[in-house]
Amino acid sequence: MTIPFLTPDLRSELDLRLAKVREQMTADKLDAILVGSTVNIYYLGGCIFRGYIYVPAYRNPLFFIIPPSFADEKDFCVAVRKPELIAEVLGEKGYEFPRKLGLEFSDLLYSDVERLKRCFPGAEFADASMSIRKARMVKTGYEILKMKEDGMHQAAVYAQIPHCYQEGMTDIELQIEIERVLRREGCLGILRTAGSRMELNLGSVISGENADTPSPYDFAMGGEGTDPSLPVGANGVTLKPGTSVMIDMNGGFNGYQTDMTRCWSIGEVSELARKAHECSCRILHRLEKIALPGVPISRLYSEAAEIAKSENMHEYFMGHRNKVGFIGHGVGIELNEMPVVMERNHEPLQANMTIALEPKFVIPHVGAVGIENTYRVTENGLENLTPFPEKLSDL
Amino acid sequence: MTIPFLTPDLRSELDLRLAKVREQMTADKLDAILVGSTVNIYYLGGCIFRGYIYVPAYRNPLFFIIPPSFADEKDFCVAVRKPELIAEVLGEKGYEFPRKLGLEFSDLLYSDVERLKRCFPGAEFADASMSIRKARMVKTGYEILKMKEDGMHQAAVYAQIPHCYQEGMTDIELQIEIERVLRREGCLGILRTAGSRMELNLGSVISGENADTPSPYDFAMGGEGTDPSLPVGANGVTLKPGTSVMIDMNGGFNGYQTDMTRCWSIGEVSELARKAHECSCRILHRLEKIALPGVPISRLYSEAAEIAKSENMHEYFMGHRNKVGFIGHGVGIELNEMPVVMERNHEPLQANMTIALEPKFVIPHVGAVGIENTYRVTENGLENLTPFPEKLSDL
Repeated sequence: MTIPFLTPDLRSELDLRLAKVREQMTADKLDAILVGSTVNIYYLGGCIFRGYIYVPAYRNPLFFIIPPSFADEKDFCVAVRKPELIAEVLGEKGYEFPRKLGLEFSDLLYSDVERLKRCFPGAEFADASMSIRKARMVKTGYEILKMKEDGMHQAAVYAQIPHCYQEGMTDIELQIEIERVLRREGCLGILRTAGSRMELNLGSVISGENADTPSPYDFAMGGEGTDPSLPVGANGVTLKPGTSVMIDMNGGFNGYQTDMTRCWSIGEVSELARKAHECSCRILHRLEKIALPGVPISRLYSEAAEIAKSENMHEYFMGHRNKVGFIGHGVGIELNEMPVVMERNHEPLQANMTIALEPKFVIPHVGAVGIENTYRVTENGLENLTPFPEKLSDL
Repeated sequence: MTIPFLTPDLRSELDLRLAKVREQMTADKLDAILVGSTVNIYYLGGCIFRGYIYVPAYRNPLFFIIPPSFADEKDFCVAVRKPELIAEVLGEKGYEFPRKLGLEFSDLLYSDVERLKRCFPGAEFADASMSIRKARMVKTGYEILKMKEDGMHQAAVYAQIPHCYQEGMTDIELQIEIERVLRREGCLGILRTAGSRMELNLGSVISGENADTPSPYDFAMGGEGTDPSLPVGANGVTLKPGTSVMIDMNGGFNGYQTDMTRCWSIGEVSELARKAHECSCRILHRLEKIALPGVPISRLYSEAAEIAKSENMHEYFMGHRNKVGFIGHGVGIELNEMPVVMERNHEPLQANMTIALEPKFVIPHVGAVGIENTYRVTENGLENLTPFPEKLSDL
């Protein structure tokens, strides 16, 4: 593949990202980082190629391109066959040997990192994953636009959900029709997640008792799944009157994701379920106001938990048989970015963080209720990137 | 989640797998292995739970279960909160401290392996990924049945492909309809791959010139994709008379996968393309006969390359602008298992290996042609797990 970069616009965008990564590198005292994961190559290169990006603290970055990827830009691209040749090229180009080199400890396999370490004998190695995650946590204007676009596609898909439903359907049958609408709207069909505890196709549809089944994965809501090889999400239950169906699909239309959840009821659901759903909306509206730059992230969690408690909904808040300890998370290229919105995260919110907030409730015998939006943090509170009606309507 | 094991049948199946892993552990001189990846927990545990499986060379394995996963079987399951508690439990239970402990260097992130290393201070560490991959390479009877079942579902889906097509469709529109049929047939919706160089939703649909576009990923065929964030597969081209469409979806109905490709023509395609397609079929039929236990795997590659050469198809064999160096690969829980069927793999075939063979051709201006089946190696040659008509028919 010939690498499709770089328009002048994209080049200046990548410079912005580079500056943010370098700020973290300075804080972490790294002389250079060598990036090899798909997500971080996409972040720093604007597209995905086979190879590595070398970022020294004080000189221009170099892109090492491995065939079949190919690039014409000789000023910053070097074709190599394998990573073992990188150090030599750096020497030829007069780059200083990095004493402390950052590698992606939490984005690459152990064997991949060990291989890269052997390419730099004598260097000290440190984790670059966290440096880059912290840089990625605060989005550029261009990234926000990408996410807004993603949110608009998501809303267009959610608007079609009532047309996907037919009486007597199972959860998985409904999910399949939604997936088709998502894909026809332009969803790329993969879900990028950080870490090793997330497996899912394009999202989750959960109804009735299944909402109360914990999953071994790190998702806020669980579900049994349809096979022991993928114990999460829809379990094949028929959508029955008196239950709710929670739909948490995950965008992914342009390299960025927004995370969005809406719920529908099948016929009437209990008063308790309705109240819990309204409580979720109230929590979000309150957080939309108080989530200003500088506010500790833990405050969002405690405020949400307090509202749930004051409305006597604590028993069902963020799970019933199994409770999770967060109400939201960063989102961007990956579904689960920094920050995690939990009680013990006292870091301050920053403008242009993008966070998905999902104060949800699991009501026994009914299912999960509540909503989730992806927001941008601004000086005036949260800007909703996934605007869509929030009411619990009959499907 | 409560772990759904273990029926007596599954228990004896897992004992078979354990015996194979132990054989490799002995060859690799490992005192024990500690398994934490999703795929290997599924292989050795029969389901996916949060936690670890500890396998000593000469004593019973122990399952360390982390909440919310939960198991009743007190004889071999221990609930722990985190991996740091594993060594202590082993001591309490009278298990010897492992001098040489195998960890999954090629299945876990660097940071995950480093964390596990710190749980066993003083131990020597070695790679367990390769030991387990070698064990998984030869399937049990139960695994073969799972894969046959998967192949039957695949064939049922492929039979519906002509009904998915409408004149004037793009490649991605056709793919979306096939995905829907796949999911309705029971496909779980994820594609498990080893390593870090594979990203794809449920398979690939490639037509026309797009077949000649290399991808940075490790797939046999490339494709441009529809966005720089996922440069592989369908690129949105309209399916035009005179081109071929290659459909390579990947099963995944029950925890196991089969890999299968069929091609259709849109109207008439060139004589060259037809001949190349027939050459692919001839190669497969020849390999079906000669692929016996004991035969070096490299022989399959060289035989295929020779047939392609003798029919003057070498220029198009396994790619045109970019050629890949293999014609097949193992398949099972993951899409890309051992062995790799390439020229320099001189290991012998073994009975009950399951391999996908895909001698394909890229014909300029037409597209990719050829087929792929997943086979089981038997004493009488290859048994096809994905039987389905092979002809290049008009879609």
